[in-house]
Amino acid sequence: MNSSDPSATPLKADKATVRRHNLSLVLRTVHSEGEATRAGVAGRVGLTRAAVSSLVDQLIADGFLTEWGKTLSGQVGRPGTALKVARTGPAGLGIEINIDYVTVCVVDLAGTDRVRLVERKDNRGAAPSTVLAQAAQIAARALESAAEQELHPVAAELALPGLVSGGTMRQAPNLGWSRVPVEGLFAQALTALRPAHRALPVSADNEANLAAMAELWFGGCAGDGGRDRVNSFIYLTGEIGIGGALVLNGQLLRGAHGFAGEIGHVVVDPDGPDCRCGARGCLEQYAGQAALLRAAGLDEAAGAAGIDELETRARAGDDRALSTLESAGRRLGQVLSGAVNLVDPDAVMLGGVFRRLTPWMAPAADEELTGRVVSGLWSPGNGRLRASSSSGDAARGAAARVVREVLADPAPYAKHRVV
Amino acid sequence: MNSSDPSATPLKADKATVRRHNLSLVLRTVHSEGEATRAGVAGRVGLTRAAVSSLVDQLIADGFLTEWGKTLSGQVGRPGTALKVARTGPAGLGIEINIDYVTVCVVDLAGTDRVRLVERKDNRGAAPSTVLAQAAQIAARALESAAEQELHPVAAELALPGLVSGGTMRQAPNLGWSRVPVEGLFAQALTALRPAHRALPVSADNEANLAAMAELWFGGCAGDGGRDRVNSFIYLTGEIGIGGALVLNGQLLRGAHGFAGEIGHVVVDPDGPDCRCGARGCLEQYAGQAALLRAAGLDEAAGAAGIDELETRARAGDDRALSTLESAGRRLGQVLSGAVNLVDPDAVMLGGVFRRLTPWMAPAADEELTGRVVSGLWSPGNGRLRASSSSGDAARGAAARVVREVLADPAPYAKHRVV
Repeated sequence: MNSSDPSATPLKADKATVRRHNLSLVLRTVHSEGEATRAGVAGRVGLTRAAVSSLVDQLIADGFLTEWGKTLSGQVGRPGTALKVARTGPAGLGIEINIDYVTVCVVDLAGTDRVRLVERKDNRGAAPSTVLAQAAQIAARALESAAEQELHPVAAELALPGLVSGGTMRQAPNLGWSRVPVEGLFAQALTALRPAHRALPVSADNEANLAAMAELWFGGCAGDGGRDRVNSFIYLTGEIGIGGALVLNGQLLRGAHGFAGEIGHVVVDPDGPDCRCGARGCLEQYAGQAALLRAAGLDEAAGAAGIDELETRARAGDDRALSTLESAGRRLGQVLSGAVNLVDPDAVMLGGVFRRLTPWMAPAADEELTGRVVSGLWSPGNGRLRASSSSGDAARGAAARVVREVLADPAPYAKHRVV
Repeated sequence: MNSSDPSATPLKADKATVRRHNLSLVLRTVHSEGEATRAGVAGRVGLTRAAVSSLVDQLIADGFLTEWGKTLSGQVGRPGTALKVARTGPAGLGIEINIDYVTVCVVDLAGTDRVRLVERKDNRGAAPSTVLAQAAQIAARALESAAEQELHPVAAELALPGLVSGGTMRQAPNLGWSRVPVEGLFAQALTALRPAHRALPVSADNEANLAAMAELWFGGCAGDGGRDRVNSFIYLTGEIGIGGALVLNGQLLRGAHGFAGEIGHVVVDPDGPDCRCGARGCLEQYAGQAALLRAAGLDEAAGAAGIDELETRARAGDDRALSTLESAGRRLGQVLSGAVNLVDPDAVMLGGVFRRLTPWMAPAADEELTGRVVSGLWSPGNGRLRASSSSGDAARGAAARVVREVLADPAPYAKHRVV
């Protein structure tokens, strides 16, 4: 800031800035429409046909858009060649490292999951650097598959079950990690595996945050034109731990330090059982995977196979399975009613293992929400408490976040710059 | 949106828009500095001295700024006449209607509380229209006092203990109000009392939201230059009910329907005592004013006088008073730890009756927060849990919100337009 006349500078900068902004605008319009003509885009964004054509030409040359053979009819004006976002070129790489599995996926510009590798492995025993190196190996394999499809991830995003800030996993009670420089360790391991390639920028976030973004971007019912889609919700992941994320008006609520959403450690009973976080009576001890398996008389170390069995028993009407899920649903509903009273979302999405257990957990949870949410907006079966969509998870959310950055400002990722 | 060239329109609109924006920029700069010269403002906002002079002249003519007799020295360049925001003219009117009192205040452009009327009265027995008419009478008296000081509130804001949206009090369990069109009823009553005046625009919000804004705008330690000020916090009001508000990065978190912050109805014990909201075991039943008085063996209907007595006994070391406050503090800390895990604020501010009870409630609450907040950022005595500042309340927050709107865009409130 100084006292020279500021009116000239912004105008000079405008032309380049406006074109860069308009490139993104056109690209995002084609992205959200799925398929569009130049005239259609022009009408949509309020630019001239000539301006849009120039932008589209650049987006095609830079590898972000492709022309589609057929021409569209049924539109106002002369039918034109249809445009789509490119199915090759810039892409996103997402890596979810959870307690007992690693999922890697590559998402293209359209948001489609094009490569997916899942490995079930218990990450609790190993050193963080080992776990991250193994995840990098899976990622390197996914990158090979992507390259065969001519997809080139421009960045990688890690999804982790704990508190992440500034590139560091500050705390992950269920992994037993504390102050691990995850971005650096993963980038190092991945670069070592593919020395011929330019190093990928790596960033990291909490897995519930990224699963929530996947729900925001890919959830809702495909059949209803998105009418059922909400953009203010609490998202729960239930794996070995219980994670959570808050999305309000389409924005992730991160809190002052990036640690918001830790619903798994909201207290249910201050004198309850010990929790891995060091406190007692946290929600995780009543509705987490191990607690569910234990209460149902199953092996609490059985993991996903145990949840399969629990679901089978519930479906068969097994009393103990049903009472376990009813009781956990009630505790969950009590904690959720507090969370809803605090942040007033439109909906609560049950993800992770809760997704398939929703039919047996939701009734009791709904009852608690109905009785306890003071706004009176919650009632049984009105759909505010629901299973999350099955089309998104943290790995896809992570990869899609990379793609979103490309869509928001494609210029730095133009063809000649992409590795 | 249409397909005509959009590049011309924004530029044409710019001159007027930029001047209007710059008027606000200059006004807000003087407001935040308290006192400034034209040259000082120019240096601060990055406009030329000539441009600032023209803007300042208009702001003086329109009644928003005044020149201060003395000239300032010790500044770079020629000393100039000092500017301050006007102490007369446009102002804000705030009306807090709570369970057992009504507070009305008028705040000037500088944010100073210039008129304040408080009437202790139990509002639980009367019809909502009667309570609002009585509040309008108090407001009319405050407007008379304001007029004597040449202050002219340009709008009124109501602060109410319940869920407010779209001009309606949707639900106020402790008042027993439901679906009351508060803005309309208050505006009608006030207009009837002062037919000679133009009707004041009236809006309404939750009292905890407005008390939190007062904390944000006026809190912090005056002596430390604002270093201790935080802009992400949970604010608790403890009156007969317990209200709450969430402020993140200086913005009020309203939730999807405007009902966020209802911490008083977060469940402590699902099988606990009945609450006015219809549920059981809400925080209000453990740490609300009536619960505190009851547990301490005092008359739970004694209100503020009862809290005076409780404070006196605690100060004197009375065992029952101390154990009451310790136990309520512990419950409060358990609920707060859940809220902190969910929204990750920098601090929790205890307002209302909690403010003066903080010394005896905070230690146990701090202990719970330390043990239960997974980020590990909370520890006893690190000041994250603290009494709110005594310089703001909901009425001042309400009046100041009106003033903030004037500062953000003064043009519509220029002298010749103000009643």
